[in-house]
Amino acid sequence: MTAIQFEIEDRDATSRARVGRVTTPHGAFDTPAFMNVGTQATVKGLLPEQVAAVGAQIILGNTYHLMLRPGSELVDRMGGLHAWMRWDGPILTDSGGFQVFSLSDINRINDDGVTFKSHLDGAMIELTPERSMQVQNQLGADIIMAFDDCPPAQTKNDHQLARAKGMGLPAEAGMDDAGYHQRVQTANERTLRWLERCIRAHGRPAEQALFAIVQGGTDLTQREWCASRAGELDLPGYAIGGVAVGEGTDDIKRVVDHTAPLLPDGKPRYLMGVGYERDIVAAVRAGVDMFDCVLPTRNARNASAFTPTGPIRLRNARFRDDPAPIDPGCDCPACGGGFSRSYLRHLFAADEMLGGILVSLHNIRHFQRLLLDIRRAIRENDWSFVADAWPVAGV
Amino acid sequence: MTAIQFEIEDRDATSRARVGRVTTPHGAFDTPAFMNVGTQATVKGLLPEQVAAVGAQIILGNTYHLMLRPGSELVDRMGGLHAWMRWDGPILTDSGGFQVFSLSDINRINDDGVTFKSHLDGAMIELTPERSMQVQNQLGADIIMAFDDCPPAQTKNDHQLARAKGMGLPAEAGMDDAGYHQRVQTANERTLRWLERCIRAHGRPAEQALFAIVQGGTDLTQREWCASRAGELDLPGYAIGGVAVGEGTDDIKRVVDHTAPLLPDGKPRYLMGVGYERDIVAAVRAGVDMFDCVLPTRNARNASAFTPTGPIRLRNARFRDDPAPIDPGCDCPACGGGFSRSYLRHLFAADEMLGGILVSLHNIRHFQRLLLDIRRAIRENDWSFVADAWPVAGV
Repeated sequence: MTAIQFEIEDRDATSRARVGRVTTPHGAFDTPAFMNVGTQATVKGLLPEQVAAVGAQIILGNTYHLMLRPGSELVDRMGGLHAWMRWDGPILTDSGGFQVFSLSDINRINDDGVTFKSHLDGAMIELTPERSMQVQNQLGADIIMAFDDCPPAQTKNDHQLARAKGMGLPAEAGMDDAGYHQRVQTANERTLRWLERCIRAHGRPAEQALFAIVQGGTDLTQREWCASRAGELDLPGYAIGGVAVGEGTDDIKRVVDHTAPLLPDGKPRYLMGVGYERDIVAAVRAGVDMFDCVLPTRNARNASAFTPTGPIRLRNARFRDDPAPIDPGCDCPACGGGFSRSYLRHLFAADEMLGGILVSLHNIRHFQRLLLDIRRAIRENDWSFVADAWPVAGV
Repeated sequence: MTAIQFEIEDRDATSRARVGRVTTPHGAFDTPAFMNVGTQATVKGLLPEQVAAVGAQIILGNTYHLMLRPGSELVDRMGGLHAWMRWDGPILTDSGGFQVFSLSDINRINDDGVTFKSHLDGAMIELTPERSMQVQNQLGADIIMAFDDCPPAQTKNDHQLARAKGMGLPAEAGMDDAGYHQRVQTANERTLRWLERCIRAHGRPAEQALFAIVQGGTDLTQREWCASRAGELDLPGYAIGGVAVGEGTDDIKRVVDHTAPLLPDGKPRYLMGVGYERDIVAAVRAGVDMFDCVLPTRNARNASAFTPTGPIRLRNARFRDDPAPIDPGCDCPACGGGFSRSYLRHLFAADEMLGGILVSLHNIRHFQRLLLDIRRAIRENDWSFVADAWPVAGV
């Protein structure tokens, strides 16, 4: 009894990359897939039909936000998240764990779960593996995530700590290597115990596929232990968590290269919260099938547009008289629709919503086009587009 | 040599209402017409294709805002307003006069023009009939408006004054009737002199139709004088200005009923800044052909949705569990798309842009459907829909 089917259609000759298709109760999506984030039951500023029109096949909802507002019981009464937000395609919800650890004021954490203060009204809320499953069962996404203990990023100096906190990431000051590894191991063991409780508490396994999350930070031994133990539980999919939480690109690549192949070959592999174009390409070549990230839409609202030659900041005065679209090679409603950089700069200067909307559509399309190129590269064993089109990928 | 053609296709048997069509260099629009406002070269939050999809055939741009930011010279270099904002249909621009008198800090006003401080950066700007024509010629709208002297609303007590100022309307305290009529007459005579200067300064009469504006406040004798003098100048269209600036529905109806028939029968008649459904119905029956108002989109962003039984405020807690659309009889993307009041309430509670976007689409459609009903009523000499569907029209 499983809610999803995963079919691998082709494999890359030069890497571990695979191209395939995940079929869910609400339709299928192609892998490798990039999922756009719809935190509060909306991809910010866009109608579902606009999100679908730029190529998105699956979106992500946030359990933490939706349990606080409007509450999953309400969404359930309204027919579930798909019906309520009018997105008929596949949806994935996270477990709430990451947001509890990064956004909230934690009051108590022990083996039972986490008690925290709501960032909305200060109410004291308890989140446990059982409660996370109940909330996700009520929301009704096609893929749901296990509730995990997210260890903080290892920040070896004040600069790294400030940067991690600035990104809203869980981080602790002054951890040495020994302290970090101990913290990761404790979180990892708890994550496994919580995973087993999630499996027992999951009430709709025929309609919702529960994915495990492999933690372990930058400690490859911990990654191996967690992947092995979680793999024995034979879940419909496996995620790599705790990546891109403040560490550099080299550490992301090292952890993903090592961990992805440890996950069951026949199940979708999901790298959570990643990321920039080069990180995605590297992870696909390590064998990852699914990605999510807020970058396309969050950066869009800050006037930052992705292009094959790197991001451009549309508030910049140099675009005042620029009649060109963001990216002449793009077929999104902004570029294909003939909206110029000059016009987009005006919209941001005038605080007009349409600026963030048009650039959101462009940035989503940019990532969907990257994934189209990646899937083609795997089928044709030809990755030349990476060097041609994505020479600069990070910001 | 004229930029537009106006064809009256049918007349109502029981009133002065007419149904027709205005053809411009960028396509035609049906009259009576409701124009949605795109102040800063965008209907807030909506792509042009979305605005067109809910039935809008002509939109309005604001000369005052666009001359300050980004500047009409820039828009001209970018190919004009149509090309720059990607709206291929008819556009009307106002003259800047109303905003100068209502939004800016006026430094000096005399027969030459108005000098004011920009509300954006405090720069001292001069607006004259000639400059307004130059700016509107550069923006390139199909219909442009004469620069007029907008007399303040007559506020007889502190309550009326506070209300007018709260609405951003020009108002002066403590005017008695004699003072008011003197002020209206002075403004009216200046408006006529400025109209003659606009006609001489207008550089693109073959591509842009210049409309005169008839002022006169609530003084019917002044309205007659201005309509008569402006009518002699044989312009392509005539507007009634200075209405709905703080006076009540009865005064609006009295002025419009009296003034509309004074305007040339064969030219489009435009009632500026009006308004609510009942005001529009009454004005159409007096012989008005064109309307504009910010209500649909401004109220939408404040969670106020128009319905045939009056507006509803979607932040209200009573909509928390309401699975119904805003208006079951509506075919807009919000109602026809199945978005519930419950979901819309959540979007506003969570400060999500999509709330204002969906209700903007609904409210625009609401007014376009009203105008469809009005045009049908004129053709069929059957106004029963008014009593049936719009029993409560004001807020």
